[in-house]
Amino acid sequence: MGPRAIVRQLLAGRSREPGPPAAAWAPANLALCKYWGKRDARLNLPVTASLSISLGPLGTNTEVRAAPDARDDVSLNDRRLSPADPFCQRLSAFLDLFRPRGLGFRIATANTMPTGAGVASSASGFAALTLALNDFFGWELDRRRLSILARLGSGSACRSLYDGFVLWRTGRRPDGLDSVAVPLAARWPDLRVGLVLVTAAPKPVSSRAAMAHTVRTAVAYRAWPARAAADLRALRRAIAARDFARFGAVAESNALAMHGLLLDARPPALYWQPGTVAAIRRVWALRADGVPVYLTIDAGPNVKLLFPAAASRAIRRAFPAVQIVAPFAGLT
Amino acid sequence: MGPRAIVRQLLAGRSREPGPPAAAWAPANLALCKYWGKRDARLNLPVTASLSISLGPLGTNTEVRAAPDARDDVSLNDRRLSPADPFCQRLSAFLDLFRPRGLGFRIATANTMPTGAGVASSASGFAALTLALNDFFGWELDRRRLSILARLGSGSACRSLYDGFVLWRTGRRPDGLDSVAVPLAARWPDLRVGLVLVTAAPKPVSSRAAMAHTVRTAVAYRAWPARAAADLRALRRAIAARDFARFGAVAESNALAMHGLLLDARPPALYWQPGTVAAIRRVWALRADGVPVYLTIDAGPNVKLLFPAAASRAIRRAFPAVQIVAPFAGLT
Repeated sequence: MGPRAIVRQLLAGRSREPGPPAAAWAPANLALCKYWGKRDARLNLPVTASLSISLGPLGTNTEVRAAPDARDDVSLNDRRLSPADPFCQRLSAFLDLFRPRGLGFRIATANTMPTGAGVASSASGFAALTLALNDFFGWELDRRRLSILARLGSGSACRSLYDGFVLWRTGRRPDGLDSVAVPLAARWPDLRVGLVLVTAAPKPVSSRAAMAHTVRTAVAYRAWPARAAADLRALRRAIAARDFARFGAVAESNALAMHGLLLDARPPALYWQPGTVAAIRRVWALRADGVPVYLTIDAGPNVKLLFPAAASRAIRRAFPAVQIVAPFAGLT
Repeated sequence: MGPRAIVRQLLAGRSREPGPPAAAWAPANLALCKYWGKRDARLNLPVTASLSISLGPLGTNTEVRAAPDARDDVSLNDRRLSPADPFCQRLSAFLDLFRPRGLGFRIATANTMPTGAGVASSASGFAALTLALNDFFGWELDRRRLSILARLGSGSACRSLYDGFVLWRTGRRPDGLDSVAVPLAARWPDLRVGLVLVTAAPKPVSSRAAMAHTVRTAVAYRAWPARAAADLRALRRAIAARDFARFGAVAESNALAMHGLLLDARPPALYWQPGTVAAIRRVWALRADGVPVYLTIDAGPNVKLLFPAAASRAIRRAFPAVQIVAPFAGLT
């Protein structure tokens, strides 16, 4: 079953008439238990469940309107992109799933995280676009269903439909209609996320390609699903108990284990730069000095820190350029 | 069964009378398919077979004689060590296995690799000591049996009893009498090993402790034995065919997979420093430029290079401080 059939099913009986311009916002999200490996690459269905935290004010604003002609017209951060741009092509392919015959979309999308902030914009981007399309067409879909549509654009986008902690369920159905994102009720206002930038590799490997390569070639991947499931359970327990040390330790070891998988792939894959190891060691040194701080690393060289608000001063001292986010600020 | 019972069995009917001073030499060795994980910690029996290359002129010279009194007296690189020194204690514990009542040993041991060359001296050290003891007591054991004794001091020491490529067989017996090192006949005079030093961590974790921690806590370790066996087969085929690219690729991915296992442990373990990643990236950049060079990394921050002699100039240009070893120089 392909994405078109899923869309047909979800939108059955719903409006497909374009309306007035519509805009939406979605936060970026940081995986604490990583999404690594697809069981279906066309539907972006994951091998394991994952858990993220949405990054409050960092995310994407997207506006959708009908274009004057039949061609898509995409601007990113107020800069109009060439239709040949890979980002445009990926967006247009997603829009094709919903496109009434002859309609071009004018998409204006802007990220509130600085470019190169080390936070992926594809998750918040596809989430915001999906929300805007829901308004634009008047679908009136609930978030659960919207999370399925957003996932078709980018797997982790389904987690960007909510604030706070978000669980992306693996699901069992081949059509993925049960592989949805759901918010966790827990609020943890004291929690902080720090973004530490490390000079990027000149030729990064897409996480999509690295994921497929790992699943195909890493012998250790066989042990990953059980480990990810155990990490997820431990994280949920730690969140429920507001046990920061446990929470941080599980998130950190889950992330490093994912990078361990990459080293097990053939040929090995490495997202780290020298500065990545320097940041890891600095975090470990801080912790040895009694500062409660843990780290996580996505498919890139940057390091993200997890710490309680009270550690902010120590964190700023050790990482003067850190950008600190309060994921629960303003949430009720 | 403990080490004493093994020694009793191997030395049954042999001389245990100290003779005149005896000296021996053993080369250091570099594992191309790593030894990681013990199935018996007292006998240093490995979970998997491993394959190494001996490092020609880098190794250990050891002299053994009777001490004037009943106490052991150890000097390392012409410096007398305190009996409380951990190195002394480890040596004395090993010597206890062979000690006639009331005998103290005077051990003078010297390494030909500079201290901090990034090459472990315990393998060549215990191998040279075992060879010297064989002479000192007049045991007249063959190298196969000596490799068993050396292993009781340090697992990888069994591989330092030979030059060139050496295979350490896993063995199946609980007493480890079939877990022996054997030399491979293949000679590869064109092969070079480059030692690249990276500033070491202030508090390194012993490989012994890290190995035990990995086996106990890394879920991915379950997949390691099968992977190590496949790597070993591939390495042996590549050596037989003198297929350098295959040889290098397998050694490199085996080493990085071992470091991947460390990241999978809980808590994760990391031997790397920023300079480690810088060296990895430099090797990969060289290779992308057409220089045939691969890397391996042991339980430490340093990087070892594998390349054919013709690449030496390019390697020196990229790593001005590299120390280059010709493992087969002078071997017939």
